[in-house]
Amino acid sequence: MAASAPDEKKTPRTEKGRRTLRKLLDAAAGEFGDHGFHEASISSITRRAGVALGTFYTYFDSKDEIFRALVADMSESVKRAAREAIAPEMGALEVERAALEAFLRFAGEHKEVYRIIDEAEFVDPRSYRMHYETVGARIIERLEKGGDSGAMREGLGEIEAWALMGMNVFLGLRYAIWRGEGDPDAAEVAEAANRMLQSGIGRSTD
Amino acid sequence: MAASAPDEKKTPRTEKGRRTLRKLLDAAAGEFGDHGFHEASISSITRRAGVALGTFYTYFDSKDEIFRALVADMSESVKRAAREAIAPEMGALEVERAALEAFLRFAGEHKEVYRIIDEAEFVDPRSYRMHYETVGARIIERLEKGGDSGAMREGLGEIEAWALMGMNVFLGLRYAIWRGEGDPDAAEVAEAANRMLQSGIGRSTD
Repeated sequence: MAASAPDEKKTPRTEKGRRTLRKLLDAAAGEFGDHGFHEASISSITRRAGVALGTFYTYFDSKDEIFRALVADMSESVKRAAREAIAPEMGALEVERAALEAFLRFAGEHKEVYRIIDEAEFVDPRSYRMHYETVGARIIERLEKGGDSGAMREGLGEIEAWALMGMNVFLGLRYAIWRGEGDPDAAEVAEAANRMLQSGIGRSTD
Repeated sequence: MAASAPDEKKTPRTEKGRRTLRKLLDAAAGEFGDHGFHEASISSITRRAGVALGTFYTYFDSKDEIFRALVADMSESVKRAAREAIAPEMGALEVERAALEAFLRFAGEHKEVYRIIDEAEFVDPRSYRMHYETVGARIIERLEKGGDSGAMREGLGEIEAWALMGMNVFLGLRYAIWRGEGDPDAAEVAEAANRMLQSGIGRSTD
């Protein structure tokens, strides 16, 4: 983990520094999202960010390094989007519904998130794996809480967490990234997925 | 669709031709799986296949073309692996269990399948999307059959199909590609996922 953390001396200490870093990461998201890692260039990123080329090197050593920082940043944004949609009074299944709906909206507004995280599989496999392992670990915690509260059955773990993560990722791919006219909206998709999560797709026997 | 179908004059008409094409595709799977699209070369593929460089061009015009053919071929192999595991007497939910177990075994034995299909998102986005849309359409059919037979609830459709596809893809990523020591085997993973599919993860109220 240490190796992928930003160099300490490069972590901005001032508000202005933090704003510049934010501009660079947003510009990188646009540049990598539009052109992919290999076609993207540091000079295009600084041009998009409206900062001098030299400023880039105050924060990052290379294109690889800003890409890695961007994957971590996007991973964090996805987490934040889901977390902001969750209220303390929600039950464990309602939390999953709200988190998915928020994720679908986030992905619809930031379509580059799929391309960038997916490209990490090739550009920076460690970041790619860390992203999913981190999300998976967070879901395991929620499922355990759900078991404790009585909203979910007990004994849920990693298998169910990865299954749930896969559901969410693919629903985002289909209904946010590849969204077509007349497709159900984020609330409808999250509702249907939540019903499936709650009680499955088997015919109930009563 | 027509544009991605192999050139008719290049479709082998003899058994020997079909064997050579198979050798080229298998060699391409190894080469693209080991090195990725950009680092892979036609000469390495023919060397792996044990055929003359010129032979390559009897079947494909370019590295792009064999990559595209390989994605279609892998898509077909994944389908075949699932289909071979399914017996006519199985109920709709048992079909899903068997198909997932077969897919997990297939992915464990052909780990390059993830890297190659995932790289198609960047090398040949149309093949990438077509792969998932084709699998999704096949799952929709199975869910409809499940509704008709009474094993699954009625009204299942594209949302549930993409959710199910995502479950399977991510369980393969975690338990076939990133498999660790002591992890549950394909049968156990498929069993747990199938329980989730059948009746969800909510606490049953009876």
